[in-house]
Amino acid sequence: MARLALGCCIVPQTRLENDRIRAARRVIDPVFLDTPLYRCEALEPGLGCMVSIKLETANPVRSFKARGTEVVASLLDGNGPRAVVCASAGNLGQALAWSGRGRGLEVTVVASRFAPAAKLDRIRALGARLELVDGDIETARERAAAIARSQGIRLVEDSLDIETCEGAATIGLELTDTAPSFDAVLIALGGGALATGVGHVVKTRAPGVEVICVQPLGAPAMTHSWRQRRVVTTDSTSTIADGVAGRYPIPAVLDDLLLVADDAVLVQEASIIAGMRMLLDHAGLVVEPSAALGIAAILEDRDRFAGRHVVTIVCGSNVDADAYRSEERRVGKECRSRW
Amino acid sequence: MARLALGCCIVPQTRLENDRIRAARRVIDPVFLDTPLYRCEALEPGLGCMVSIKLETANPVRSFKARGTEVVASLLDGNGPRAVVCASAGNLGQALAWSGRGRGLEVTVVASRFAPAAKLDRIRALGARLELVDGDIETARERAAAIARSQGIRLVEDSLDIETCEGAATIGLELTDTAPSFDAVLIALGGGALATGVGHVVKTRAPGVEVICVQPLGAPAMTHSWRQRRVVTTDSTSTIADGVAGRYPIPAVLDDLLLVADDAVLVQEASIIAGMRMLLDHAGLVVEPSAALGIAAILEDRDRFAGRHVVTIVCGSNVDADAYRSEERRVGKECRSRW
Repeated sequence: MARLALGCCIVPQTRLENDRIRAARRVIDPVFLDTPLYRCEALEPGLGCMVSIKLETANPVRSFKARGTEVVASLLDGNGPRAVVCASAGNLGQALAWSGRGRGLEVTVVASRFAPAAKLDRIRALGARLELVDGDIETARERAAAIARSQGIRLVEDSLDIETCEGAATIGLELTDTAPSFDAVLIALGGGALATGVGHVVKTRAPGVEVICVQPLGAPAMTHSWRQRRVVTTDSTSTIADGVAGRYPIPAVLDDLLLVADDAVLVQEASIIAGMRMLLDHAGLVVEPSAALGIAAILEDRDRFAGRHVVTIVCGSNVDADAYRSEERRVGKECRSRW
Repeated sequence: MARLALGCCIVPQTRLENDRIRAARRVIDPVFLDTPLYRCEALEPGLGCMVSIKLETANPVRSFKARGTEVVASLLDGNGPRAVVCASAGNLGQALAWSGRGRGLEVTVVASRFAPAAKLDRIRALGARLELVDGDIETARERAAAIARSQGIRLVEDSLDIETCEGAATIGLELTDTAPSFDAVLIALGGGALATGVGHVVKTRAPGVEVICVQPLGAPAMTHSWRQRRVVTTDSTSTIADGVAGRYPIPAVLDDLLLVADDAVLVQEASIIAGMRMLLDHAGLVVEPSAALGIAAILEDRDRFAGRHVVTIVCGSNVDADAYRSEERRVGKECRSRW
């Protein structure tokens, strides 16, 4: 593991630098910064540990993704290309549409036609051109790259483009600036921008805090890659956590993740649903499945967290209201009796 | 209307002073300050105006009330009385319990036994002594006063005690410091701390902004009092908006409200429920009924707000999860077809 000793602490040599992350803060619209961070005691009896929530949903796009797209868009806000394209599971597309609209950029989003309707509707409503593909996020990534090549426009690649990681990493600055001491941070793991960004800052500024990434058992490619220290792909995914369901980890992102993550765990679908329900019932929070991964991880391994202070990043709340409601009803009793 | 001309603007002569409100900010735990303020475009097609949300629910007590109890408790944090009692519809009690616990105060809360179970449970969980009365909030107020007299302890009276208004008024500072220009602010009206506090700051710092208080038709005492410019009481209340269901307006608070409110409107129960549902479906926010009063007011008078930029303060999210769910199901279709 490449690490550089600097004074008293060890700085992991990822692609990220704290100075650049601090600079990123300055170009992000303040509406996305300094999000709520608070202890939620009502969750604690059910989880057996102290739980603080970092809430990334109370903003115009209801996810953390605009922290990154603000950085991307700010760099395009002068001369140079005025058009961008990205693949998205739904949240990046909304965020890029929002950030691009404010700067007069022409935004194209490529998404799976199976993405939640709420996400697709919001991308359109924010004025982006939306192209749907028949496959999953990996098909969308291929198509977005093809569009960028053929049209000669900027391709925004989530987690690979350093700006997306730097934007997400600003959450890490806020956690380490303002949180009372905590023992672990639970981070949803998809492409890796959130995990490597926050992980980098936490490991450089609060190295004693455990950085734990959480992924669904049904979409485990990055976790398997982290464990085997090499890129492992999967043929398919099967999870309700649509925001983190990639199959092809990006090598450079994996390299960073290997430097900053203390662990990567996989959780079952039932735990994700139970986590969503706990957040609704005890924290009054509507969350999308990816945002419940941290709670799911605690539910599956209470002993590990017993008595510790854990921060979980509630990273998005874009759910289809009706689907949410019916799923919630369906599994409600089952989860209650289980947990 | 008593107003003092000061430089270019007119300062309403309420019991509040902006210097004291700024000082209040300094004693309030930062976890309750600088709450999210963001435009929610997904709500706008259904409302016909620009809508920004000031979100007061993402904190340890899930309402704005701790802004006031922090000020109260900070003043008791030295010598002097170490015990306090308040009457509460549920949110003030939680907030006082939280603020008191951190300072070693002995907190007693008197509430109606018909208050939402979620609120009563949280008051107990936060370590306060909870005494239930058979009547409503006015019965609880009488009982709290009797306890204070007999035990010689501090009685905290919501809206009458200036600290509760000053705490709430810090929301006004945040609105006028950071908001892009807006045309009106919609404020839930109960005892009046929120309305007079925010109203005072808005009228002194952004006098062109319309301050509109919203109360349920089923609990109209303060609105009737404002309209008739004298205290009007009612014999009973009938509303799901438990947080604002008082019957006996406080004269000093009414005097302030007369100076800062441009209007006070009454809304129907169906509109409150429709507002709650809109906030859930389009903003992903669980709110208690009082927090939906602003949206209800827009729904009932679209023409008034058409094309304007309106801020609504989402003041609390303490609801009984099961009651919320079943009520939500019951009225869902009805509201959808209606609005």
